[in-house]
Amino acid sequence: MADETLFEFLHMEIVSHVYKEQQSGKEVMDNKDRAASVSVLEGMGFRVGQGLIERLTKDSPSFKDELDIMKFVCKDFWTKVFRRQVDNLRTNHQGTYVLQDNKFALLTQLSSGKQYLDQAPKYLAFSCGVVRGALSNLGLDSVVTAEVAVMPSCKFQVVIQKL
Amino acid sequence: MADETLFEFLHMEIVSHVYKEQQSGKEVMDNKDRAASVSVLEGMGFRVGQGLIERLTKDSPSFKDELDIMKFVCKDFWTKVFRRQVDNLRTNHQGTYVLQDNKFALLTQLSSGKQYLDQAPKYLAFSCGVVRGALSNLGLDSVVTAEVAVMPSCKFQVVIQKL
Repeated sequence: MADETLFEFLHMEIVSHVYKEQQSGKEVMDNKDRAASVSVLEGMGFRVGQGLIERLTKDSPSFKDELDIMKFVCKDFWTKVFRRQVDNLRTNHQGTYVLQDNKFALLTQLSSGKQYLDQAPKYLAFSCGVVRGALSNLGLDSVVTAEVAVMPSCKFQVVIQKL
Repeated sequence: MADETLFEFLHMEIVSHVYKEQQSGKEVMDNKDRAASVSVLEGMGFRVGQGLIERLTKDSPSFKDELDIMKFVCKDFWTKVFRRQVDNLRTNHQGTYVLQDNKFALLTQLSSGKQYLDQAPKYLAFSCGVVRGALSNLGLDSVVTAEVAVMPSCKFQVVIQKL
């Protein structure tokens, strides 16, 4: 077990805390609360991603292009953060990338049936932020979203924002 | 680096988030806000500690007494969670234990001078909860507090609550 469990438990706690805090006493959570929760978690992830990539790349040679950066994120970065490589990376060569992880670390603790499929987005907001934060410190502005069709596999879509 | 950094970064984020949230717009944080923040973080730690100890002890033989449990916490548990053993364990043999860690994992990121000494308690609340949660799942109700005299060393005081 060791540290990864510690991280996963803390992540669970923080998701539940942020959602409760945004709902703040109301009986049902509305879409605005949900969006606010996602935004808080994404922001935390962003700063964590920035910190992680700084450490990870301090001895790396510089990257030759955008694709080179994305490959680094899918291999080295993903392995350090989510404990495996991305299974599949696709791109349209116009700044859109789809990263597929067939066994995403933060979803493996949830049941792999369909029962909790609607809960999955809660557990992805932080990770989207982590990816966006990492790319941001490598000089790429991006929009990162995630979707789950079958647990625990997950597709992250990264759209690089051109200036 | 790997996971421990991920955990440490997330821990930093959550401390800052909880403190900001409790202060909620006011210019200066009062003692009540501070107490509320500590309590939120301690609660998160408690649940994380419960989860961790369950995993860690699932293949362990049962403990013979309270001191045996405390030794396990100082060695195996501390190593898994805080990446080193407790340096010194003292007890009055009446349910009070002092655990000294001379290089506490969650304080090593802060400057070791005196400058941030007053900030240290923020970064200990979660850990106090972790210890209390672990002990709770081993059948011991306790009160756990921490104090720092010189960074990054830290003393945890555990007082077992007798029924």
